[in-house]
Amino acid sequence: MSRNTRERILGAALQLFNEQGEPHVTTNRIADELDISPGNLHYHFRTKGDLIQALFGSFEQQMLELLATPESREVHIEDIWFFLHLVFETIGEYRFIYRDLTDLCGRFRTIHRRFQGIIRLSMQTARYLSDGLADQGQLEAEPEELEALVRNIMLVSTFWFAFDQVVERDTNPRPDRAVWQVMGLISPYLVGSAREELSELARAYRTDSG
Amino acid sequence: MSRNTRERILGAALQLFNEQGEPHVTTNRIADELDISPGNLHYHFRTKGDLIQALFGSFEQQMLELLATPESREVHIEDIWFFLHLVFETIGEYRFIYRDLTDLCGRFRTIHRRFQGIIRLSMQTARYLSDGLADQGQLEAEPEELEALVRNIMLVSTFWFAFDQVVERDTNPRPDRAVWQVMGLISPYLVGSAREELSELARAYRTDSG
Repeated sequence: MSRNTRERILGAALQLFNEQGEPHVTTNRIADELDISPGNLHYHFRTKGDLIQALFGSFEQQMLELLATPESREVHIEDIWFFLHLVFETIGEYRFIYRDLTDLCGRFRTIHRRFQGIIRLSMQTARYLSDGLADQGQLEAEPEELEALVRNIMLVSTFWFAFDQVVERDTNPRPDRAVWQVMGLISPYLVGSAREELSELARAYRTDSG
Repeated sequence: MSRNTRERILGAALQLFNEQGEPHVTTNRIADELDISPGNLHYHFRTKGDLIQALFGSFEQQMLELLATPESREVHIEDIWFFLHLVFETIGEYRFIYRDLTDLCGRFRTIHRRFQGIIRLSMQTARYLSDGLADQGQLEAEPEELEALVRNIMLVSTFWFAFDQVVERDTNPRPDRAVWQVMGLISPYLVGSAREELSELARAYRTDSG
């Protein structure tokens, strides 16, 4: 029962943080939402910071599991597309982290450090996948281009949600569109069958969503 | 003398906002910095919001002037490179706006609306320059690729500073690196002499900064 309350608090906090932005949600508001007393909430999470850290911990765990999975065999465009979907759905689920990232990292040193770890691992994965495509003769880029590509993939992956929100006032995450934005970074470097695979995926996608 | 005080307040506010993040700087801290009374500050700016709006107004004016300047004649890679430098230097000068953009736009509706206007105009400029290069046979891209390119240029231009800050704890803006990141988005689509021009610029840059 107590375990259940803890989970319910985390769920309500995640939803309110995502909807209203973490800085604008108090622990009393979260307790209200669940119809429990502030004291009960504070029994489970002493401070709002503890609640944020717990949610960040779940996010981190999901991301690390995803980033650990790229397989050692041949890289296919469709695998990358699917992998990006999973990553961006996770980011969408915990979008409050990305909404005010600079502020969050400024206030919580441990979150900043752990977020940098996620970025580092993501960069390794991006480079691993690009190198895989290059080794198979499916991607052609100069070393400097590859470096800029990986950096731009990271930047777009980190800020697509904030961009959608500011530019289009869209508070619903659109992981599908984010996937295509990242694929758009990679596409001009693709050659051979990878280029054809991507065109086919894009056609299928436009038919599905159009 | 009063005019001078107003300018000094704006200058000190901009510096403190940039260094510490706008949400963490009070008007009393700004008055302290200038060794003036809080009352004197409030005579010039009734609220902190007024101060933020005034700084945003100066930023907006500089951006609109820059974005209005692309000339109607031939587009050269070097012009784009120089243009991006000017834009990113302005963003660096007012980096507090970009540090917590989502939060700032959430708190100030008029800033959100005006920021969206700047983004729209920037997108037009990016498209104008890309179309110019395409018309001159210097850029080759499918319509969907061009759309993704313009969107990615906007995203990278908007969040390069936040990215540097979160990933590299670098609070000094690096407009030069941001320019190369955006050039890296365009480069794979370049053909002919534009491609050579960019390689030459990159070589000169590496010699300068190495």
